[in-house]
This record gives sequence, C-alpha cells and structure tokens, in this order.
Amino acid sequence: MRSGKRAAKLTAVHPAESRPAVDLDDLNNRLGYFVRRVQVWVFQDFIRRLSGVDLSPAQFSVLVVIGANAGLSQSALAATLGIERARLVRLLHGLEQRALTQRLDDADDGRRHALHLTRDGRKLLTRAKALAAEHEAALKEKLGPERYRMMFEAARGF
Amino acid sequence: MRSGKRAAKLTAVHPAESRPAVDLDDLNNRLGYFVRRVQVWVFQDFIRRLSGVDLSPAQFSVLVVIGANAGLSQSALAATLGIERARLVRLLHGLEQRALTQRLDDADDGRRHALHLTRDGRKLLTRAKALAAEHEAALKEKLGPERYRMMFEAARGF
Repeated sequence: MRSGKRAAKLTAVHPAESRPAVDLDDLNNRLGYFVRRVQVWVFQDFIRRLSGVDLSPAQFSVLVVIGANAGLSQSALAATLGIERARLVRLLHGLEQRALTQRLDDADDGRRHALHLTRDGRKLLTRAKALAAEHEAALKEKLGPERYRMMFEAARGF
Repeated sequence: MRSGKRAAKLTAVHPAESRPAVDLDDLNNRLGYFVRRVQVWVFQDFIRRLSGVDLSPAQFSVLVVIGANAGLSQSALAATLGIERARLVRLLHGLEQRALTQRLDDADDGRRHALHLTRDGRKLLTRAKALAAEHEAALKEKLGPERYRMMFEAARGF
C-alpha cells in the first residue's frame, strides 16, 4: 500500500515549484494540520459556489437533514450534525426568518419543535444540492480521483 | 481497493448503535461534510490537550514554523500556513505580548519583521510539541491505524 510505486501515482496537490521553501517541521507528521488545510479549501469553495443561494455549509447541512427527515426534533438534528444546541437555535432562527424552515408543535407524539421545510425551503434546497454537487466535483478534481477515493474511504462515517 | 473484504477490515468510527437513525441524504456523498467532522474532532481534542500551554492550533503552527525557520518573514509564514495577513498580524501580536516570539528588523538582507522565537517561546514549544504528539496518537486511535494511514496518504501535502 505504501510502496514508492503507489506514492508515485498520486498527483501532487501543490506542484513543488509553487510551495515556499519553508520547513514545516513537526507539522509534516500531524494529520490534523493537513485535514485543516483541506477543510479550509472546502469551506472557501463551498461558500463561493453557494453564494447565489446564500447558505453556509452548516445551513446547507441543516436543510438537507430536515428535508430528508420531516418532523425531526431539534435535539436529534443537533446530535446528527454534531452542532451545539445554542448554535443550532441561532441557525434555525435565521432559516425561519427567511421562511425556509418552520418549527411545528406535534401534539400527537409529544415532540416539540418538529422541524419541516417550507415550500420555499424545498425549492432552495434543490438549487443548493445542485451547487453542492458541483463543489464535490471540484474537490475531486483538486485532490485527484485516487486521493479523493482514499480520503472518502477513510473519513466516511466519522 | 474498494472490495468488500477491504471495507470490512476498517473499524467503524461510530458503532452503528450509537448513531441516531437519521437519514443524512446527500451528505453521505459529500467528502467535505466528513472532513469537517474530522476537523471539528481534531480541534476539540487539540485545544483540550494544549490548554495547559494555552495555544490554539493556529498559534501552535505559527510557533512550529518560526522555530524551524528562524528569521522567516511574515509574508512567507502567511503563505506557508495559508493564513490571511490580517489574521497573522493579530496572532503574532498575541504571541509577542506573551514574549514567545519577536520581530526583528534585518537590515543586512532587507527583510523586515524577521520572526524569531524567544527563549520562553522555545521552551513552551518543546512542551507543546509533546502534547501535540499525544493528540496525534489519540487521532490515530480514534480513526484506527488503517483509516489514519489512508487519510494521511490522501491529505499529505495539501
């Protein structure tokens, strides 16, 4: 797996000539450092591509999960996305003010604040999902197909 | 590479029983979503482990790179770490106030604001590097060795 032949097949993300000749020292052995670099690139590209629908990565994730789980509770949404409750409340408030989501009390099964997309929310989500797919294609191109596949295999389900 | 046999060897990061039964929909096919989840875990663990030396991940990276490249310019440091200039100036100001780094004018070769660690900076960095190594071991344990190796091979050099 870690043979020279395998390593040589991977396309360098940054050509050597474009990198400053600075010693990264211990950072070369810190996965978190490179994960952070990937994540910064992802956010910058994602935010740029989704600027037309004015959704942050977190807002997009919230809309996707509510869209696929109508009636979801705030606590289940917070647990699923790993978002702190206070931050999620602010996020949902913003989406409600734009009339993209709504919180309905569900008297039948005792759930409070069951979350739903509005009609506008569903329409915007359809556009946003198409832009997110373009972002994903750009990330795959940036990494190259082999790095992309490996990183996804390693990160999936985290 | 993507055979069932290979996939079965990977240890699940979250056992199925601990995950809420919520449909992630498109997020399941978005690498950026999982990279973000890894990065959030990394920051939380890193910040906790380095709380004794009161260094953020960005401050740690800055100290490491200055430590390995005495006399580095601010612009080279910003380019190396992918930090915006304005943010780097704030970061360096905080480190200088704690007397961990200093900016010296270097008249000989025309470089301005050549960056150096102070003696206290070098001492703190030694402690911080040891804590960062413990964080790295925790990340490897969290991912499992095979996922860790794959993710590093994919992300290295980004």
